[in-house]
Amino acid sequence: MMDFFKRIVFWRKHRSLEDIGLSAQKIRQIACHEAGHVLVAHLCGDGEAIIYASIAPETSYGGYGIVRNTPDPHFMKISTRSELESAIAKKLGGRAAEEVVFGKEQISVGCSGDLAAATIIATKMVAFCGFSEKLGLISIDIKTAADIPEVRAEAARILDTQYARALNLIGENRHALDELTSGLIERRFLTAEDIRKILARAASL
Amino acid sequence: MMDFFKRIVFWRKHRSLEDIGLSAQKIRQIACHEAGHVLVAHLCGDGEAIIYASIAPETSYGGYGIVRNTPDPHFMKISTRSELESAIAKKLGGRAAEEVVFGKEQISVGCSGDLAAATIIATKMVAFCGFSEKLGLISIDIKTAADIPEVRAEAARILDTQYARALNLIGENRHALDELTSGLIERRFLTAEDIRKILARAASL
Amino acid sequence: MMDFFKRIVFWRKHRSLEDIGLSAQKIRQIACHEAGHVLVAHLCGDGEAIIYASIAPETSYGGYGIVRNTPDPHFMKISTRSELESAIAKKLGGRAAEEVVFGKEQISVGCSGDLAAATIIATKMVAFCGFSEKLGLISIDIKTAADIPEVRAEAARILDTQYARALNLIGENRHALDELTSGLIERRFLTAEDIRKILARAASL
Amino acid sequence: MMDFFKRIVFWRKHRSLEDIGLSAQKIRQIACHEAGHVLVAHLCGDGEAIIYASIAPETSYGGYGIVRNTPDPHFMKISTRSELESAIAKKLGGRAAEEVVFGKEQISVGCSGDLAAATIIATKMVAFCGFSEKLGLISIDIKTAADIPEVRAEAARILDTQYARALNLIGENRHALDELTSGLIERRFLTAEDIRKILARAASL
Amino acid sequence: MMDFFKRIVFWRKHRSLEDIGLSAQKIRQIACHEAGHVLVAHLCGDGEAIIYASIAPETSYGGYGIVRNTPDPHFMKISTRSELESAIAKKLGGRAAEEVVFGKEQISVGCSGDLAAATIIATKMVAFCGFSEKLGLISIDIKTAADIPEVRAEAARILDTQYARALNLIGENRHALDELTSGLIERRFLTAEDIRKILARAASL
Amino acid sequence: MMDFFKRIVFWRKHRSLEDIGLSAQKIRQIACHEAGHVLVAHLCGDGEAIIYASIAPETSYGGYGIVRNTPDPHFMKISTRSELESAIAKKLGGRAAEEVVFGKEQISVGCSGDLAAATIIATKMVAFCGFSEKLGLISIDIKTAADIPEVRAEAARILDTQYARALNLIGENRHALDELTSGLIERRFLTAEDIRKILARAASL
Repeated sequence: MMDFFKRIVFWRKHRSLEDIGLSAQKIRQIACHEAGHVLVAHLCGDGEAIIYASIAPETSYGGYGIVRNTPDPHFMKISTRSELESAIAKKLGGRAAEEVVFGKEQISVGCSGDLAAATIIATKMVAFCGFSEKLGLISIDIKTAADIPEVRAEAARILDTQYARALNLIGENRHALDELTSGLIERRFLTAEDIRKILARAASL
Repeated sequence: MMDFFKRIVFWRKHRSLEDIGLSAQKIRQIACHEAGHVLVAHLCGDGEAIIYASIAPETSYGGYGIVRNTPDPHFMKISTRSELESAIAKKLGGRAAEEVVFGKEQISVGCSGDLAAATIIATKMVAFCGFSEKLGLISIDIKTAADIPEVRAEAARILDTQYARALNLIGENRHALDELTSGLIERRFLTAEDIRKILARAASL
Repeated sequence: MMDFFKRIVFWRKHRSLEDIGLSAQKIRQIACHEAGHVLVAHLCGDGEAIIYASIAPETSYGGYGIVRNTPDPHFMKISTRSELESAIAKKLGGRAAEEVVFGKEQISVGCSGDLAAATIIATKMVAFCGFSEKLGLISIDIKTAADIPEVRAEAARILDTQYARALNLIGENRHALDELTSGLIERRFLTAEDIRKILARAASL
Repeated sequence: MMDFFKRIVFWRKHRSLEDIGLSAQKIRQIACHEAGHVLVAHLCGDGEAIIYASIAPETSYGGYGIVRNTPDPHFMKISTRSELESAIAKKLGGRAAEEVVFGKEQISVGCSGDLAAATIIATKMVAFCGFSEKLGLISIDIKTAADIPEVRAEAARILDTQYARALNLIGENRHALDELTSGLIERRFLTAEDIRKILARAASL
Repeated sequence: MMDFFKRIVFWRKHRSLEDIGLSAQKIRQIACHEAGHVLVAHLCGDGEAIIYASIAPETSYGGYGIVRNTPDPHFMKISTRSELESAIAKKLGGRAAEEVVFGKEQISVGCSGDLAAATIIATKMVAFCGFSEKLGLISIDIKTAADIPEVRAEAARILDTQYARALNLIGENRHALDELTSGLIERRFLTAEDIRKILARAASL
Repeated sequence: MMDFFKRIVFWRKHRSLEDIGLSAQKIRQIACHEAGHVLVAHLCGDGEAIIYASIAPETSYGGYGIVRNTPDPHFMKISTRSELESAIAKKLGGRAAEEVVFGKEQISVGCSGDLAAATIIATKMVAFCGFSEKLGLISIDIKTAADIPEVRAEAARILDTQYARALNLIGENRHALDELTSGLIERRFLTAEDIRKILARAASL
């Protein structure tokens, strides 16, 4: 019932991606990107936090799709190193899905926002948390951390590792990704319940 | 009819390049430059976006020629890596045409604006989009990105690759370039329809 | 009697960690972290300064636990080099306890504040006090000290040494750590007297 | 007639260099410097733009001589690479004349303004126009360009090449330089017509 | 008589170091530090400038001891290189005494102010006075001098040399140092006359 | 007569160096320093510009001696490279005299102002005038020039060369230096005429 209400709100609020002139090919890529976030979140054991996924022109921040999560008030406060690594993998899941399905040359600029968010987490891991063996135990002021070549290099190493993990998880669960993508293209809005059903069906094959 | 109207507006609005004291040689180079943009756009599969090309003193920004395109509201939002590469090739098409026809020593300062615009795209590819294998996956603040030697070096590599592509496309379609150049010198204003006809005639030879 | 009064105040002021949604596993890690501070302080010969240790949502600074000390008005004024080294070991005792008990991958972001405080002491040792043989006798302006790679490298060396010392002290006194951790989980608030009793009992085994 | 009028204006407006205390030797060097600008401009095929050359205390900017040109509204807009190179050679022509006639040790500070102007052109060639093979195709913000060692090194290379060209042109046309120098010392003001006559006479020898 | 008056003023103005909670061990180290300044000053031939030495909580700048000198209006104006070197040795005399008596690990943070003052002199020697053979004759702006690694390295070399000299002087006159230390602990305030007597007695042994 | 008047003004205006507490040794060094400026100026062929030399507390800028010159309105405007080199040698003549007479260890801080002035000239030679073969022809913004290591290194090279020249000139004319020094100590104020006589007498020996 709650889900039914959400769907109504979604359809009243949003125009379709076709309305703003996007081709079927672009819409497929957007759906695939969001499906990537959903899939990696579930495979990293944090799928329950997802409230819904949707593809539509998002007037609030100018994007074309979103995966909405229950906010975690303790994030970056008592998260562990491995939880932060999973958070990065989830952020990069959209890009990884685009690379697996469409190829490296077709990765879209739409992945930049995710990369910026993942870079912030990785930079804090290196500069604040002492989670880089190479830099060792040292706390570096956030205002200057990103200007230090070694910090950037270590953050890039963390990001590369988690991107490889996301690519791997998606490659091994390609069928689930395709089902989520199709679901998003058909319905444009998937509730947590919808996602659970699609993933269960894909897993049963 | 629409085209006829546009031509009238153009001739009412602009003085000729001769009026502001430019030699026939300089006018030929300006026409060749704009023809280069048009040709590379068509060969990269984005020719339909062109509304018109013209050579005349442009009072709005102080230049001597322009290729006007239908604006793409999704550019740099869901463009793919290969679309950005083509956008760079098109920006550098004017300069490439000057080099092919007049030689390296005669390339004009007029290409600087295009180079600045192409550099911005290339820098974002490297610093925001994670499209440089050498820097890897990392997002760098735009205010400092251009100050980092590795970012500049990677952006220059992308620009060099796309410039080589533009040089190549123009070298292989020299006849079409010359026809577009002559058309611009004769008429000073070419509609999308004019351009299509010239390219079709050149292709049929 | 005083202790009894403190306990009352504590329970009136604080909600429990369970109330703000933390799992038993997270609460165990928080207790272990604070126990690490207490244990290293005692083993470095500065345990008397501790007034109490507690785990609870700290509204004043947003943390989840605290070890409260009698403030030392002479700290960083006539402290000796070896006293500053012990101060760093104590600051890093929480993190060391997390690593020993839960493993490197489970160290939490909660250690960042301690690391920042320890880094400030280590940086002053290197840049103000001439306590780095590598940089030698030189006083460097605090505003720029942290931007100098050699200062950061020497501070990191001091921090690594003291972290190794903390890891070692905790490894050799694991039983005492576990007792303090259990005490904190059960009672949430340990007075200086409680701590003394737990440590005495652990030592007598 | 026009020239006659200009001469009257010049003599009414200016005191002589002797009046401000300069020795015959200094005056000869100033005349030689301006003659160098005139000669290199003519040999680089841009002599027609010169309106007059003069040596006298210039109250407007505090200098001691000037070569006045018809301003080119298209300069740095559609100039070619080779035109910019010639513009640099002309700017450095004064210094080159001083070196050829008086020797390296006697080059005067008066050449600094020319060097600054030539450096700006060379820096733009490297940083804006992509005219340095070493830096490649890249556009660098003018505010930071001069702070980048590679940009400075490439600009210095362009300046050195054009200075060598100016030295060479003056060395091969020493007689014309001496005649222009003598003409300036005798008359203090040479119109375009005067310059043409002196150069024609020198060429006929 | 004058000395008697000074003693009265001192005792009226100051509480004792015991009053602010310092241990006998800390008080001994403070006395030793001030004795180091006094001794090195006398051995470098500038002992006459000392008015008094004392150990007590200094409310004016928050320190625990002081050696008061007659101010030299010509300092850093016509001082010679060797006079500046002695000034540095005197500033580092307190730290040297702590190292000789208590060992390297027990040097206190209280030496930081002296080190900062000595660093300023050493930096000016290198950056203003041309007193570093390695940097040679060059004057560097004080605002940026300390940011230049070679300046810091040369200043550190000067400081190390003078610290070695101070260590040596104190090592060779250990008995005098101990007598001055004891005198300060007993009386807390030593006039120039007191100091002279202690040094004479120590020398006569 | 004029000279007589100047002497009266000098004596009315100034207290003696003894009045402000300087020793005979310090006064001799100050006199030697000013004598060095006078001697190097004369030997570099610019002695006529000197109006007078004096040693006394200079209230206007806080110094202890001065060599006053007729200001040259054309300095740094049409000065030649060799004239700038001589200007540097003159500025460093005071320091050179101190080194020759008292030894390297006794050079005084009083030379810093001269070194700063000489460094400005040398930096402009390198950064504005293209007078460094190593940096080549390039004009560098004065605000950043001194921050560039190569500019500082080249300026230091020019300063070292001219200091060596000054040392040499003074070494070869030691008798004249001593006479000028004695003259200054005796009379405290030497007019151009006094200086000429002392130098003539010294030369005749």
